[in-house]
Amino acid sequence: MIRYPNGEKYQPVAEKKRQAKKSKEDISLSASNRGMNLENDINLSNEWYRDQDIAVITKRPTPINIVKVDYSHGAKIVDAYFEKQSTTDYNGVYKGRYIDFEAKNTKSKTSFPLSNIEQHQIDHLKRVIKHGGIAFFIIQFQARNEVYLLDASFVIKFWEHGERKSIPYETFLEDGILIEQGYSPRLYYIDAVETKYFKK
Amino acid sequence: MIRYPNGEKYQPVAEKKRQAKKSKEDISLSASNRGMNLENDINLSNEWYRDQDIAVITKRPTPINIVKVDYSHGAKIVDAYFEKQSTTDYNGVYKGRYIDFEAKNTKSKTSFPLSNIEQHQIDHLKRVIKHGGIAFFIIQFQARNEVYLLDASFVIKFWEHGERKSIPYETFLEDGILIEQGYSPRLYYIDAVETKYFKK
Repeated sequence: MIRYPNGEKYQPVAEKKRQAKKSKEDISLSASNRGMNLENDINLSNEWYRDQDIAVITKRPTPINIVKVDYSHGAKIVDAYFEKQSTTDYNGVYKGRYIDFEAKNTKSKTSFPLSNIEQHQIDHLKRVIKHGGIAFFIIQFQARNEVYLLDASFVIKFWEHGERKSIPYETFLEDGILIEQGYSPRLYYIDAVETKYFKK
Repeated sequence: MIRYPNGEKYQPVAEKKRQAKKSKEDISLSASNRGMNLENDINLSNEWYRDQDIAVITKRPTPINIVKVDYSHGAKIVDAYFEKQSTTDYNGVYKGRYIDFEAKNTKSKTSFPLSNIEQHQIDHLKRVIKHGGIAFFIIQFQARNEVYLLDASFVIKFWEHGERKSIPYETFLEDGILIEQGYSPRLYYIDAVETKYFKK
């Protein structure tokens, strides 16, 4: 096998072009999905935590409302629509405890707008807390390149009693936990879970 | 408003025909999905357990591999395929503990064939057990109208060391827990969880 000095395998130019085109398509697909990078970072972190045998947290697939399936060649969905998640995006288990969270990002530097959150997500997280689960939000302040874990109770409080329809940045500084960022995992959010919920 | 003696509202015949047609379509859609009744029973039971504030267990949506979305009128998915769940179908929280299970039915009276199960589901359930979660299968013997809870460890044992590629019915009698059936909830499976994992 021919290899370049950098150890990369030799590939015909056509194949390289095809791959370059493909990766461009991937990027444009991602860009269409707001908050995709945070989601991607969490998914990669979850894979790492799973492989390192630290926690089993998975993303719930996006629910799709299927209108029509064409069975003429296998089962091809030809008419369907995205539905809103009726719960949160992530759940799983860490040290026997049930973990449930929603991840959101904001471009604002000063607050996290609650317009990003749905009533049924609040209802779901209240139930999780009631049943002894661990419930939180992972909020990314894009412009600050900071990601925080904030216990769901704070979000619920602001949702139900807040005068403003947003959570000020200061709340994250005071009551949230800054999530360390790295390469593997991209987000050390289980460290934040450990600090918040397991350390005395 | 005109009502029939049975209390049913009067409806024009055309509307009745339309509804009858619609419900036929619903039935044929359901029939195309093997094990749909068990799935439906569990979903209804989960709603009941949620509304009664007993447990929060949800079905993971079926993952869909989306090939093409038409954005000309909203976001309409025009080319997509069903993917296999990489984990199990259900998870959630009961009394603070993480719950994870897969539901399957069989037409056999004598055994549950393991061909219904995927390696990655076994891997997932092994991880759940390792991290202190509660992992099991809900297996319906259709011809017997019996539904059992069987701890995942038994399924894992048969999967890895079994000479036969199925679990004999006797194992369910000896090591499983028969799930009581009713109207609300359809399946009292949390009672079986309580008996198996919470009672001393």
